[in-house]
Amino acid sequence: MDRRSFMRGAGLAGAGVLAATPLAAPAIAQENPKIRWRMSSSFPKSLDTIFGGAEDLAVHVSSATDGNFLIEPYAEGEIVPGLKVLEAVTTGKVEIAHTCAYYFADKDPAYAMATAIPFGLNGRLMNAWFYQGNGNRLLNEFFATQGLYGLPAGNTGAQMGGWYAKEINTVEDLKGLRLRIAGIAGTILAKLGVKPQQLSGSEIVPAFAKNGIDAAEWVGPHDDLKLGLQKAAKFYYYPGWWEGGPAVHALISLDKWNSLPRRYQAILADACAATNLNMMARYDVKNPQALKRLVADGTELRPFSQDVLEACYAAALEAYADMSAASPAFKRLYEDQLSFKKDAYLWMQLSEYTFDTFMMIQQRAGKL
Amino acid sequence: MDRRSFMRGAGLAGAGVLAATPLAAPAIAQENPKIRWRMSSSFPKSLDTIFGGAEDLAVHVSSATDGNFLIEPYAEGEIVPGLKVLEAVTTGKVEIAHTCAYYFADKDPAYAMATAIPFGLNGRLMNAWFYQGNGNRLLNEFFATQGLYGLPAGNTGAQMGGWYAKEINTVEDLKGLRLRIAGIAGTILAKLGVKPQQLSGSEIVPAFAKNGIDAAEWVGPHDDLKLGLQKAAKFYYYPGWWEGGPAVHALISLDKWNSLPRRYQAILADACAATNLNMMARYDVKNPQALKRLVADGTELRPFSQDVLEACYAAALEAYADMSAASPAFKRLYEDQLSFKKDAYLWMQLSEYTFDTFMMIQQRAGKL
Repeated sequence: MDRRSFMRGAGLAGAGVLAATPLAAPAIAQENPKIRWRMSSSFPKSLDTIFGGAEDLAVHVSSATDGNFLIEPYAEGEIVPGLKVLEAVTTGKVEIAHTCAYYFADKDPAYAMATAIPFGLNGRLMNAWFYQGNGNRLLNEFFATQGLYGLPAGNTGAQMGGWYAKEINTVEDLKGLRLRIAGIAGTILAKLGVKPQQLSGSEIVPAFAKNGIDAAEWVGPHDDLKLGLQKAAKFYYYPGWWEGGPAVHALISLDKWNSLPRRYQAILADACAATNLNMMARYDVKNPQALKRLVADGTELRPFSQDVLEACYAAALEAYADMSAASPAFKRLYEDQLSFKKDAYLWMQLSEYTFDTFMMIQQRAGKL
Repeated sequence: MDRRSFMRGAGLAGAGVLAATPLAAPAIAQENPKIRWRMSSSFPKSLDTIFGGAEDLAVHVSSATDGNFLIEPYAEGEIVPGLKVLEAVTTGKVEIAHTCAYYFADKDPAYAMATAIPFGLNGRLMNAWFYQGNGNRLLNEFFATQGLYGLPAGNTGAQMGGWYAKEINTVEDLKGLRLRIAGIAGTILAKLGVKPQQLSGSEIVPAFAKNGIDAAEWVGPHDDLKLGLQKAAKFYYYPGWWEGGPAVHALISLDKWNSLPRRYQAILADACAATNLNMMARYDVKNPQALKRLVADGTELRPFSQDVLEACYAAALEAYADMSAASPAFKRLYEDQLSFKKDAYLWMQLSEYTFDTFMMIQQRAGKL
């Protein structure tokens, strides 16, 4: 379609409506209806990065509608617990959730494709797949079967690999390790002998204290520092290969989405895009400061060895074969993302990677 | 400020306005005023990636206002030539330009800080600096002195280093090289003996044909393929160290920006954010396809050597000292971005870099 023509058309249509309704009380109601939604976040207020995204989203929508479309953000536990937000949307308790879709992968592993799968895409490539690949379209075909409409509305970037009381030097060291980790990554690590533990954020430090776990992953420096994980374990590993660029989603009741005026749909979609950019930016500004503080206080950084990563990667591929057999929706999304991933990581090796590498060499040499 | 309170306040104020104006012809005019702007892009329609951004921006604003706020995009040459769009804004010929601010660095080098400086930030970190660092705030303090308001509205990602008839193996090979390159990168390369040539996109292939240039840089695989540069030179170098993540801006007349209703300002800002995300995504989806085609057709990829990059980096630092002495506005922006860059490239070495590296190893091994 010729977008210029479309816009001219839209302009003329708009003018026509105004001319036809000089007395306009109904037109006001139609043009700027007052709508109030409740949004349940899966996160606590203390996480200014990720709960901050829910607040951002609400402010953007309100600002773009002079307060006529109000979305009130509620932290985990205020209306429902953090992992019950999807149910809250589908049962009509709230209109929208701000959450990571992979929390609901037990309903269908296809949910995980909206957030991150181990050894998936980095944050930038997730956006490429969402917005200009087939990601958003295919995800919404799946979400529609769940009574949902989804919009990406945040990203944390590549997360850290977590906190370990002892060093992990070999694949053997994973055997019997009681690691706080959830979801698909837990399933994959269990293949290598890890004993995955499911704990909420606030339970992690106490679990270390009473020797209930040996290790725990959460997010990255800024959020981990807030939880005090540096006091519980000394070795801080990277990369968090299970979360190379996890996306946060606005998951909206499909009926509620369809009932919005088109203009409000457009406003909400752009507010989600702005929130997506802002959250990644917030992590990129805050994580370096937290990292410096952690290292100054005695945290020791360690990379996972190539052997450990290779073993985890092989176990991940096994898991994806299982999940593809179990869920046609997962299979369709996984294969599409994989096809994009192969091309994307070919291209990213050239300018993007070598530019960053050179800049990091200068940084290490103290020459920036 | 407590955002929740702010929103509740906004909601009540909105309700008050509606209740007070039941007959609402004036309220319509106030709430959904019809505004029509013209936007001059610096780019031709043939570049669907970057001119496509101007079209995106216009569609998003129109959709979010039911066509009441219409921004019509014009390609380079339709109203003014591509490099005259800033003048078109400041003289009132158009309300907004969609352009790279560094084209106007001859007015003040501070303009370059909005787009890219050689060995600056990658695309993701540009956004971090813009939205959550001091970037947008400091840039708009500078833009205000120029009668402008600026919003990031696109990014190409790290560009390629251009097309060369002969290989560049040593710093010596740069001497006397007639390279089509503009702006600050041209100034820096001139210190190493390069003879920078300023040519528009359509002039590049003819200049090669009549032996007027030895090399040319443009953007990256997708855009370069459209110009047919692969027919003019065989060696395709990376990285384009002068453009690690160049941003495209919406540069708006400050008076026109200030005259917009606050709601339209919010809508335009979010449309620019969505455009920013979309353009990067479009490049990330299209560049791999173009790269594969170029290589299949005989293009040979070459990385710049570490020696060449180091020499260019040293020359760049000299240039920034000169520019800081010449422009206080540049100095202020440069120092702020540099401070952010030092921290950011420390943090990015951990999870982000090692995750990508592992994925690229799998890609090269054919194991993705």
